[in-house]
Amino acid sequence: MRAIVIQAPHDIRVREVPDPTIQQPTDVVLRVLRSCVCGSDLWAYRGESARRPGQRIGHEFLGIVEEAGHEVNGFAPGDLVVVPFRWSDGTCAYCAEGLTTSCPQGGFWGSVGSDGGQGEAVRVPFADGTLVKLPSAAATDDRLLTALLALSDVLGTGHHAAVGAGVRPGSTVAVVGDGAVGLCGVMAAKRLGAGRIIALGRHSARTDIARTFGATDVVAERGDAALAAVRELTRGEGAHCVIEAVGTEQSMRTAIGVVRDGGAIGYVGVPHGSGTGLDLDAMFDRNITLRGGVAPVRAYIPELLPDVLDGTIDPSPVFDLTVGLDGVADGYKAMDERTALKVLIKP
Amino acid sequence: MRAIVIQAPHDIRVREVPDPTIQQPTDVVLRVLRSCVCGSDLWAYRGESARRPGQRIGHEFLGIVEEAGHEVNGFAPGDLVVVPFRWSDGTCAYCAEGLTTSCPQGGFWGSVGSDGGQGEAVRVPFADGTLVKLPSAAATDDRLLTALLALSDVLGTGHHAAVGAGVRPGSTVAVVGDGAVGLCGVMAAKRLGAGRIIALGRHSARTDIARTFGATDVVAERGDAALAAVRELTRGEGAHCVIEAVGTEQSMRTAIGVVRDGGAIGYVGVPHGSGTGLDLDAMFDRNITLRGGVAPVRAYIPELLPDVLDGTIDPSPVFDLTVGLDGVADGYKAMDERTALKVLIKP
Repeated sequence: MRAIVIQAPHDIRVREVPDPTIQQPTDVVLRVLRSCVCGSDLWAYRGESARRPGQRIGHEFLGIVEEAGHEVNGFAPGDLVVVPFRWSDGTCAYCAEGLTTSCPQGGFWGSVGSDGGQGEAVRVPFADGTLVKLPSAAATDDRLLTALLALSDVLGTGHHAAVGAGVRPGSTVAVVGDGAVGLCGVMAAKRLGAGRIIALGRHSARTDIARTFGATDVVAERGDAALAAVRELTRGEGAHCVIEAVGTEQSMRTAIGVVRDGGAIGYVGVPHGSGTGLDLDAMFDRNITLRGGVAPVRAYIPELLPDVLDGTIDPSPVFDLTVGLDGVADGYKAMDERTALKVLIKP
Repeated sequence: MRAIVIQAPHDIRVREVPDPTIQQPTDVVLRVLRSCVCGSDLWAYRGESARRPGQRIGHEFLGIVEEAGHEVNGFAPGDLVVVPFRWSDGTCAYCAEGLTTSCPQGGFWGSVGSDGGQGEAVRVPFADGTLVKLPSAAATDDRLLTALLALSDVLGTGHHAAVGAGVRPGSTVAVVGDGAVGLCGVMAAKRLGAGRIIALGRHSARTDIARTFGATDVVAERGDAALAAVRELTRGEGAHCVIEAVGTEQSMRTAIGVVRDGGAIGYVGVPHGSGTGLDLDAMFDRNITLRGGVAPVRAYIPELLPDVLDGTIDPSPVFDLTVGLDGVADGYKAMDERTALKVLIKP
């Protein structure tokens, strides 16, 4: 079979790799129908996160079960399933309480020794704990299948940020980050009943999507001007709920700058310097809460799936470029240069 | 009248100052019955927080109203009242929602131009918003009056930490810090129904109080050994709720080290390097929440006062040394050298 590997920074290749096989009785082998490139894949692409030469990559995908180990109870060949970006056993105390990302037997796709989602097929450990079944009819609905792919990461991650930020009916929410996660944060905030959603971003293609997803205001300014603009929109106070979906020092400073006293920052941007942007003195004086982290998307899928299936929410517009496996290297380049928002892969 | 001033680091003096007078119609003049020294006063004492020579100091006190401005509605001469460590107008949006520490008209006792609580009398701005009336009978109950003094800061601050840490009935709580706030955090966690309370501390005089206040376990180890001890007590997982009542880099590292994945740190230690101890990567991977800050104790007094009055909780044991104004300098020295836990002042 063919799969994507990262040979070195800025060197994404298609390679022939062995077909996945059942290794544990709790495994399934999955034929990938849709995969995509994540903003966090770019950290590896840019060499800011270390990878071994030839390591598999990709952690967002859905597909059809081809083969199931004899201890797999919930899935059979032919099932259409969506895969969270981290596998988990479904039986430990953390999984039971919905913190699947802390499952001691869990792991990330594309880590050393595991398959990545950008390829033709994947061995899925702990299939019963990890996978979520989708209606088989969705397999023939191209738009819906793309929307469902967002459940593997960005939609659940945006939802985690909105939950972390404490979004409730009527909340005022500011969203720092105009990538796919930030946009899904807008969608999740709207879904939770936010009364006002201020999207920070300068790229009209992205802020247009933000408005479609529920943003009521767009702030195109940067730095201090952005803080002033958000405060002007909020009686000088700032937003009670802030979604931080970038992970850099500047984005965290902006998040703290726009949050109202007593408010909360839901942080889901993978930290790349954002700790340095945490001004604890300011947070202390103003009683700012920081809540979030790596999103336990597996636990959120049962809540979010029905709304995607019935069209209440449609995250598919975050995918603005579609490639086959041979186009994945170009897809990374496009996302790195911000000419693409999020790249959909049809292997 | 006589009041305490800080002349320079390690130079605490009693000085004759003008008697306070009504300056605004919303002021009262208060005769101080009880005051005390706060752990945060030591930052000024040690020269780590800047003060002007001769600046007033002290922010925890209670006393008798001597005179009330003509716009004060809730208080009259002779009323016994407790004073939160920050005054607030009681009418703004922040006060209305209980975040009195963010009141734009609020301020700290002992800031430049305001009276400090360590002295014979104080001018109280925004008396209706700031003060809370106590039963006059308490004025003749020495033990109760001391317990009520804790409402001005340490009890409400410990409660804020417990709320920030998300303490609920049955919670497992770890408390980092064996000062008066940490001990009140133990008491507050017990009051909120915690099932297990692990106090970290090496001084048996303090950990004995912690046990009296509700600690079920004491960890005397430091550093990595302390983390291992807490994990051993919690099935290897850590405590779901952690109270951080110190504010240093080491204490924050300990707090993050002992918190369970998905748990929360209620931070109320005034930051003195604790930002450096915040490992955001670890917090992100483990979904750790950071929630707290300067405690809006004014908002908590109505909830806590009945329990102090009826003896359900008694924080008075945190005061282990009593001095008059002439003994205050010795009191600071004793707290600085940790021979006293918290110094009570009877002016």
